[in-house]
Amino acid sequence: MRNVSIFAPKNFINLSPKFLKMHSMNVGFKKKDNDLLIVIFENSINVECIYSKTSTPSAPIIWDKKNNKGKCKVLIVNAGNANAHTGNNGIKVIDKYVGYLSSLLKCKKNEILVSSTGVIGEVFDPNIIIKSFKNILKSKKIDLIKAARSIMTTDTFPKTASHSVKIDNNIIRIYGFAKGSGMIFPNMGTMLAYIFIECSLSNIELKKLIKDNIDNTFNSISVDGDTSTSDTLMLFSLSKLKINLKKNNYTILSNAIQKVMKNLSMQVIKDGEGLSKLIEVSVTNAKNPTQGKNIAFTIVNSPLVKTAIAGEDANWGRIIMAIGKSYEKITQNKIKIYFGNNLVCEKGSITNKINIPKLNKYMKEKIIKIKVDLGLGKYSKTVYGNDLTYKYIKINADYRS
Amino acid sequence: MRNVSIFAPKNFINLSPKFLKMHSMNVGFKKKDNDLLIVIFENSINVECIYSKTSTPSAPIIWDKKNNKGKCKVLIVNAGNANAHTGNNGIKVIDKYVGYLSSLLKCKKNEILVSSTGVIGEVFDPNIIIKSFKNILKSKKIDLIKAARSIMTTDTFPKTASHSVKIDNNIIRIYGFAKGSGMIFPNMGTMLAYIFIECSLSNIELKKLIKDNIDNTFNSISVDGDTSTSDTLMLFSLSKLKINLKKNNYTILSNAIQKVMKNLSMQVIKDGEGLSKLIEVSVTNAKNPTQGKNIAFTIVNSPLVKTAIAGEDANWGRIIMAIGKSYEKITQNKIKIYFGNNLVCEKGSITNKINIPKLNKYMKEKIIKIKVDLGLGKYSKTVYGNDLTYKYIKINADYRS
Repeated sequence: MRNVSIFAPKNFINLSPKFLKMHSMNVGFKKKDNDLLIVIFENSINVECIYSKTSTPSAPIIWDKKNNKGKCKVLIVNAGNANAHTGNNGIKVIDKYVGYLSSLLKCKKNEILVSSTGVIGEVFDPNIIIKSFKNILKSKKIDLIKAARSIMTTDTFPKTASHSVKIDNNIIRIYGFAKGSGMIFPNMGTMLAYIFIECSLSNIELKKLIKDNIDNTFNSISVDGDTSTSDTLMLFSLSKLKINLKKNNYTILSNAIQKVMKNLSMQVIKDGEGLSKLIEVSVTNAKNPTQGKNIAFTIVNSPLVKTAIAGEDANWGRIIMAIGKSYEKITQNKIKIYFGNNLVCEKGSITNKINIPKLNKYMKEKIIKIKVDLGLGKYSKTVYGNDLTYKYIKINADYRS
Repeated sequence: MRNVSIFAPKNFINLSPKFLKMHSMNVGFKKKDNDLLIVIFENSINVECIYSKTSTPSAPIIWDKKNNKGKCKVLIVNAGNANAHTGNNGIKVIDKYVGYLSSLLKCKKNEILVSSTGVIGEVFDPNIIIKSFKNILKSKKIDLIKAARSIMTTDTFPKTASHSVKIDNNIIRIYGFAKGSGMIFPNMGTMLAYIFIECSLSNIELKKLIKDNIDNTFNSISVDGDTSTSDTLMLFSLSKLKINLKKNNYTILSNAIQKVMKNLSMQVIKDGEGLSKLIEVSVTNAKNPTQGKNIAFTIVNSPLVKTAIAGEDANWGRIIMAIGKSYEKITQNKIKIYFGNNLVCEKGSITNKINIPKLNKYMKEKIIKIKVDLGLGKYSKTVYGNDLTYKYIKINADYRS
């Protein structure tokens, strides 16, 4: 068991959800701790999902994509076995436990959504879930933190977030939970995340809210550059409360949703496997958005940059190397690199303004901010990652044993 | 100082070159050990070079590309300072020491080639080299191994190779040396490598020999997915011996050159920073060459695959993950994965033929061969890498201190 990340929040966000009931228990995927979560909504509600762009998606992603039509009555999530690369059988298995639950709860099969996280490629036994349904439904309702805790794998803390906004005199709560700490490099989003919005939204509106907010949140983080087979984000329209989504109201709601998404995605990074430092890379004055994003991720994913940060070494030569291996067309003499406020290079080489003692002191900070000013255009991109440590190796060399 | 890699050759290839003289000494870039190498050819000979595709090339690459016209009389290589991201001054500095040497040796400036390897972004003082020229030229001639040793940075052993072929009753020797053990992910080639061919070849022929042999050698290896600012390969036509390069003779010569290039590139991988195991990834039956290469490198560069191998864990789920994050269009149910001869998955999931004890025993081997059969087409690609260990972190977190 890993120690809780030094970046874990001091106080976890909690609340009692309305319009839904959540239950969890241990069914045997994990040795101890709860590993099955069921969320039952009062009504069949609107939902939109976005999944990993992987070309080897897990069975739940294949199943959800095929069956779900934008309505949801029940969500089932298990941790400990990803039901990934389990072939046609992996899909049939879902059919089996979803079928059983739909008859038990008298809802449509295509109004049930499923997610799984854990080891990839192991046989998934549906009976583990099926034989537990009656008990889990009889169990006590749980709160947000317990829900987050029941889907953890290598996470060291449960990830929850909430934010409220007032729109036309209605208080609307937005809250959610997520899991993830390794195999994290977005191409959707990343890992599992579920966000609930206490108002009525159409599927088109939900889609737009995802599209408008994913890039600066779940698509701006990377733990190790490895993309999961199971990444999933679901956005639920929870209540029947109608609001007028005129421009200003949409912005208020969208910003609030972005806050929750950002909060959850940053918690994933703060729980990055084995991290000792957080890294923020901002690329500014890029020629276009793709260039900024490409260079920012090339830096934050470079093993040599990540190990230098772990070693508290302001090795800006490795940042130059990483910019180079992005193969983006840049003008080398225009690049300025900063660690925090410390300029280290400009005009194509080390700056004579460099203050080594101040720089070395900065490198001992827990959060290292690297700024790369390309001096080419007007676009910026900030991404988040973490350092590469002995502990990452330890966690991942021993994961299955 | 690192221990010598367990994969270092038992016997190092050595020979006394003809048609050239080599000298080396310590001039102060490194604390001890020789760090400056000069190779002087009997005549001005044909040479072709290929460089890193990085968008932040080092000053020597910029300088060589601008000045060299395919002829070489002298090669200067230093280790300890890469003269990379040193701005216009980095270029001027080369002009200065090349200018001095050209007057000393009475050769043209554009017949001198330079390479530098070491820390990126530190000021490069040309006087360190200039003040040593007279002494180094007076020093004893050195052999191939000593030349290789004088350009090492984090390398734990000198990398040399040679191969002879008989063409039309002439024995032609091909030999070379290389350095490199980190920041290795080809996009030319990689690191520094110099190969000498004891016959007369035109620049067009040299170019073709590079083009025909680079993909399966230097462009098939990766230590950490990080691409250097300084990667350089130079191919020298050493003697005036004319040979008839009709089809069959060309093939004999080209194959011999490929052997030397392959040997040197494999030595780089065998000296990968901190490695405990070699990884060979073969992707077979790909739809096209790009697909095979892309998937093979995505696997060999994945930190989660590399740490699993370090942990002697046949975690084939991570190989599925890595295939997925290549975003190549594949048919998941057609993939077969083998560790050595051990089939672990087919028909989209774990195979029932799996033999766990045999598999676990195989994972203790020093060389781990992963084969991925995509079952889609007829193209194959094999690439080489190594595992990710505590030692890699140690070497690279402390590199500059």
